[in-house]
Amino acid sequence: MTVKISHTPELQAFFQQVSGAGSSQGSPRAKQILLRLVSELARVLEDLEVTDDELWGAVDYVNRLGASNEAGLLVAGLGIEHFLDLLHDARDARQGNTGGTPRTIEGPLYVAGSPLSQGEARMDDGSEEGVATPLFIRGVVRDIEGKPVAGALVDLWHANTQGTYSYFDSSQSDYNLRRRIVTDAQGRYRARSIVPSGYGCNPAGPTQECLDLLGRHGQRPAHIHYFISAAGYRHLTTQINLSGEKYLWDDFAFATRDGLVGQVVFSEAGAAEQAAGVSGRFAELEFDFQLQPAAVPAEQQRSNRPRALQSA
Amino acid sequence: MTVKISHTPELQAFFQQVSGAGSSQGSPRAKQILLRLVSELARVLEDLEVTDDELWGAVDYVNRLGASNEAGLLVAGLGIEHFLDLLHDARDARQGNTGGTPRTIEGPLYVAGSPLSQGEARMDDGSEEGVATPLFIRGVVRDIEGKPVAGALVDLWHANTQGTYSYFDSSQSDYNLRRRIVTDAQGRYRARSIVPSGYGCNPAGPTQECLDLLGRHGQRPAHIHYFISAAGYRHLTTQINLSGEKYLWDDFAFATRDGLVGQVVFSEAGAAEQAAGVSGRFAELEFDFQLQPAAVPAEQQRSNRPRALQSA
Repeated sequence: MTVKISHTPELQAFFQQVSGAGSSQGSPRAKQILLRLVSELARVLEDLEVTDDELWGAVDYVNRLGASNEAGLLVAGLGIEHFLDLLHDARDARQGNTGGTPRTIEGPLYVAGSPLSQGEARMDDGSEEGVATPLFIRGVVRDIEGKPVAGALVDLWHANTQGTYSYFDSSQSDYNLRRRIVTDAQGRYRARSIVPSGYGCNPAGPTQECLDLLGRHGQRPAHIHYFISAAGYRHLTTQINLSGEKYLWDDFAFATRDGLVGQVVFSEAGAAEQAAGVSGRFAELEFDFQLQPAAVPAEQQRSNRPRALQSA
Repeated sequence: MTVKISHTPELQAFFQQVSGAGSSQGSPRAKQILLRLVSELARVLEDLEVTDDELWGAVDYVNRLGASNEAGLLVAGLGIEHFLDLLHDARDARQGNTGGTPRTIEGPLYVAGSPLSQGEARMDDGSEEGVATPLFIRGVVRDIEGKPVAGALVDLWHANTQGTYSYFDSSQSDYNLRRRIVTDAQGRYRARSIVPSGYGCNPAGPTQECLDLLGRHGQRPAHIHYFISAAGYRHLTTQINLSGEKYLWDDFAFATRDGLVGQVVFSEAGAAEQAAGVSGRFAELEFDFQLQPAAVPAEQQRSNRPRALQSA
């Protein structure tokens, strides 16, 4: 029979001691959260009869996870980041906040401070010309009544044809495929970029190691990340996942959602595209966003999640 | 009212999906443990209304924890390692396995492959001569009937006067204050070393950062770690915590236990010590161990916890 001790008064008192209940210093909130986490972890250890080797393997795993800076990737892969979205949705529903473009996960690969421009931007540095398919992105940012929002900040980022991101892939130029575009008087944004490939976890990294143990792949469909913000509106963190992708509905990070699939239309360049320097096959993606009104000013901001080049 | 969703059939199915229930690949045990961990974590997030900033702060913390190789230190500081000892004690009690020297935590600072000698060893490299107080350690390894165990392997390690450990403190020589001593025909081991100082967490490290949030210090009393093993006996992981220490019963890692306090006796060197090259003040510590018999061969081995220089 499984031996259990964590419910005893002695152990309950010990967990209190561990989480600093006896100290007048520290953070009451941290104490509350740590008390819960330590108690739950102890219960898991005894309930599942976790062996010493399993526990110390997990501790070693956490060291390797952090040394690889992959904790954010694992949180996405284990669905915790998607769970947070669902929880926010449920809270919104409870409050009657409905409508607007669905939120979805940010992922761990945002870099702050990308080039800022009015109305339009070219996102790629041209280094994949001849390899990548040119992509023209356009759309309108609206409110939930459908009225265009002028001066909204559209902060978008995506992978290259190898599925890798500038900054994290040091072979790419600074801010390649990362731009901030302010919508024009009609709420429009336009970008010239390239068709991204899907992202895959580093096959030798700790996130994929965990996914392997779960019998799962670590692939995502091609997608484009967006932060959209405007005065008076709730900050929106979302993604467009591209139609026709193998992993569109089998995303290891669970980011694809109804209402967030973008139709990519491929064509042969005509006179207009050739005038813009594009020949051969190219792609177009049109995607509009709708923002909810902000109930309080804090809703206009993204989370304070630590991000690369945060202070840039 | 707190919004909760993790109990719904949709979310329960999602947690199953996350932990690989639908895959024929992977490890059933890993799936079982991850399903439990992900479900519990989701419950904590909704029950405590953990904010985005709190979650992403924690994710960033895990990255920094691993990058500092401090996951093992945190597990000790949060009492999880001590909890495991108590759980093993309770299982032993259920089985009727009592008697012998109590187990206590290993900690994260063992290094495999230290110099091996018969009966006795000098542990310090002399680099702290004039600063450190010489310490003579002696004792007998016995079985639970009190009969000496010849040929037992006493693998001991401790800090220097700065409270730091060789290998992890690269200013120390290789294997300083780490030795393996085989007991003689009377079960005796003897070591000449120096009186260690207590260990303290790196004040700028992530473990101390967590302890600060809990209003807790990160100090340990001076102590000496032991692995003791012998054919036919259960492997023993334990420590001697030194009497008279400020943190003896206020150890951040909760390792001090009844039966594991060693009395350090200080004296002025007499003729015998002077003949051994010791002058002035010196210390003595006598501590015997008792080993339980091994019920199965696997009990003779320490855990397969990943350790420094494991293959040495």
